Amino acid sequence: MTEEMQKIYEKLIFYFETRKFADLRMTVLDMEPADIALFMENNLDEKNMLVFFRLLPKELASDVFVETETDTQEYLIKAFTDKELKEVISDMFLDDTVDLIEEMPANVIKRILSSASASERATINQLLAYPEDSAGSIMTTEFISFSANLTVEEAFEKIRLTGLNKEIIYTCYVTNARKKLLGVVTVKDMLLANKTDLIENVMTTSVITVETLEDKEQVALKFSKYGFIALPVIDKEGCLVGIVTVDDAVEVIQEEATEDIQKMAGVLPNEKPYLKQSVFSLWKARAPWLILLLIASTFTSMILSGYEQKLSAVLYAFVPMLMGAAGNAGGQASVTVIRAIAVGDVEFKDIFKVILKELLASVFVGVTIAIVCFGKIMLFDRLYNDIQIKTATVISLVCFISIVVAKFIGCTLPLVAKKIKLDPAVVASPLMTTIVDALSLVIYCSIAIAVV
Amino acid sequence: MTEEMQKIYEKLIFYFETRKFADLRMTVLDMEPADIALFMENNLDEKNMLVFFRLLPKELASDVFVETETDTQEYLIKAFTDKELKEVISDMFLDDTVDLIEEMPANVIKRILSSASASERATINQLLAYPEDSAGSIMTTEFISFSANLTVEEAFEKIRLTGLNKEIIYTCYVTNARKKLLGVVTVKDMLLANKTDLIENVMTTSVITVETLEDKEQVALKFSKYGFIALPVIDKEGCLVGIVTVDDAVEVIQEEATEDIQKMAGVLPNEKPYLKQSVFSLWKARAPWLILLLIASTFTSMILSGYEQKLSAVLYAFVPMLMGAAGNAGGQASVTVIRAIAVGDVEFKDIFKVILKELLASVFVGVTIAIVCFGKIMLFDRLYNDIQIKTATVISLVCFISIVVAKFIGCTLPLVAKKIKLDPAVVASPLMTTIVDALSLVIYCSIAIAVV
Repeated sequence: MTEEMQKIYEKLIFYFETRKFADLRMTVLDMEPADIALFMENNLDEKNMLVFFRLLPKELASDVFVETETDTQEYLIKAFTDKELKEVISDMFLDDTVDLIEEMPANVIKRILSSASASERATINQLLAYPEDSAGSIMTTEFISFSANLTVEEAFEKIRLTGLNKEIIYTCYVTNARKKLLGVVTVKDMLLANKTDLIENVMTTSVITVETLEDKEQVALKFSKYGFIALPVIDKEGCLVGIVTVDDAVEVIQEEATEDIQKMAGVLPNEKPYLKQSVFSLWKARAPWLILLLIASTFTSMILSGYEQKLSAVLYAFVPMLMGAAGNAGGQASVTVIRAIAVGDVEFKDIFKVILKELLASVFVGVTIAIVCFGKIMLFDRLYNDIQIKTATVISLVCFISIVVAKFIGCTLPLVAKKIKLDPAVVASPLMTTIVDALSLVIYCSIAIAVV
Repeated sequence: MTEEMQKIYEKLIFYFETRKFADLRMTVLDMEPADIALFMENNLDEKNMLVFFRLLPKELASDVFVETETDTQEYLIKAFTDKELKEVISDMFLDDTVDLIEEMPANVIKRILSSASASERATINQLLAYPEDSAGSIMTTEFISFSANLTVEEAFEKIRLTGLNKEIIYTCYVTNARKKLLGVVTVKDMLLANKTDLIENVMTTSVITVETLEDKEQVALKFSKYGFIALPVIDKEGCLVGIVTVDDAVEVIQEEATEDIQKMAGVLPNEKPYLKQSVFSLWKARAPWLILLLIASTFTSMILSGYEQKLSAVLYAFVPMLMGAAGNAGGQASVTVIRAIAVGDVEFKDIFKVILKELLASVFVGVTIAIVCFGKIMLFDRLYNDIQIKTATVISLVCFISIVVAKFIGCTLPLVAKKIKLDPAVVASPLMTTIVDALSLVIYCSIAIAVV
């Protein structure tokens, strides 16, 4: 937090404690809703949060509410009077209301729905019906649309009359009577046109759209590709049903990256901020993968036990190094490919290009590491252990082979996973490492025993 | 790619090959620059790319140019006549020109600069002087500013006159004669106000700003926190020097996530799309960490060698499993904390909260895994190996201790790294795993030998 913000927060606490509510209201009027929400949650207990919230100017209240954490929202709703709840809900954008409903327990949902108007309720139910990760689930239905025969001046008038309650007013949509999307017109286009121009002559007819059921990750990629501030969402008939705004896309991009990172590290995804996660939820997110990987590691134990009699202690001592090198090499390839899939750089059809590239890279990397490995053993490990040149050669050779194999597996697994509709990030690091561990061990043991 | 886009691409190829250039121009006019750039790069060789580029309508050319990859840009610039280059450069936004210059070899830069006007050159040089990851390096200097005593109508007139060449016209900035930032006014505010209102009565005076030297990652976090479409960049005197737009923030968020993911996997960051990376650059990005980790693994070899005489083959066989469990557990903690730092959920001052949470979680996770481990050994591993209950108990106990230690190290390392201005992501997975590997091995060997 900046010093400046710290000072404002201290001022707020002072006004609140000394009951200087007029000053308090003046101060929050100059603040962003996200900062007010942070202030409440970090400085006030629940009861005082409610008192503070009731002091907020009406036009700010629902914006602040939207920015608070789920548990704060739940507490506030339960404490609200029916009238208060109705005011907050009616001031919220419908997509935010839907997000809220998705997080709340059943009894709270009931209260929320009963405080919405009949038409709002209809839209909410419709939005709730879209699959969790679809464009429909993150869109808002509050956008501005015109018919094509309006003049620019009339269109501006419509924006003035209806724009206050819309999330984005700078990109407007042109539809016919059956809501079919005909074109898009930006306020910039309109400002640069003549007042008497018809919208149909100002609008762009080739519109980049997304479909209601499109994956929200794909939608976010379209934002990063085209740099728009809003994208229209159409149904199968080409009718405009909503828009996705760039702030939602930013959120999706952050969340998806977090999710992928969590999965790569063998953590089940959790959307809550770290400090808000309970110890129990950390346990729930982490134990399953650790258990799975522990059981999977039975393979390595079995392999090592199988070779028990034949592997000398000297050779044993290099097992962790070799498994580490193979695991890390494979991880580099898998994580690179997983990310390339996520940002849309690579598709399944590129699999042969990817394999070729990785094979070539793995040969170079493998040779480099094998040389370093050989040098390290000869110059360093021999200081404290009796190692023959032949042994060093075998270890370096296995290092090379393991790296090539690991990179091959690391780059193919995510692409194959994507193809068969599994999550590429899930097959990444830990699971891939276990496979590569076992493989490199088999390679090592068999070559070592045959040669040394 | 969508089917629809595929069809458009086929049409373009047909028009291009049959020299139906009028149809070609009509088709591209309806397309997004990013899609035209993709078409050129995926379907045409260099010579034809140049021919195609010259066919583009003038108003599209520079937009398409900006969207092409670095090597395409370099080729095109080298092939351009001076006049062509001048046209493209003068139509580009200055921040894009700066990005371009940062990627080009010296001789190309010289040509670019000589084709810019003197005032453009001055701004470019100023922008180039900002540190690589600063807000200054991603901002654009093309924004709309008013003085406070304009009326709304006059302000609209100014937008009409100057807005065509500005990246964002919907957020305008109010400055005094010395360029000091006084406030911000959106086109929405202006549309909803009266034409005769003074800007100073419409503007918001409490403005969220960023400073020129602020880390671009922090800037991106402000976008995701507040949901703006542009943020003003001010210098130390509070003067407005530029703006950062949300599309740049989206790019930063994507890039930073990719970078963190690469670092966590021990890959040196590389901004190029995967398929554009040469085998050599893959080698360069991956070999260094593998070498480092290989050398670091000398510790594990040394430790194992040190206990060589005393550790039975049965105990040896569980080494990979234990190291794997500890490494994975530590990785879960470190990656979670690294991501929490990156998205701004956690700071160094939270370190004790984090440690407490992780210790508690690690005890739960550790107990769970120890129980599963014990069960697995008793029920399964005993089928193919002679293991005493005492041995199974020791292994499970070591599993528990290693997990607690690993999670402690995993959560503290990134926070300490952040504090001493190192990159948290770099100290993550592979390096952390090596430390944890060595530690868990020492714990295992010493306990196992003392007890079994």
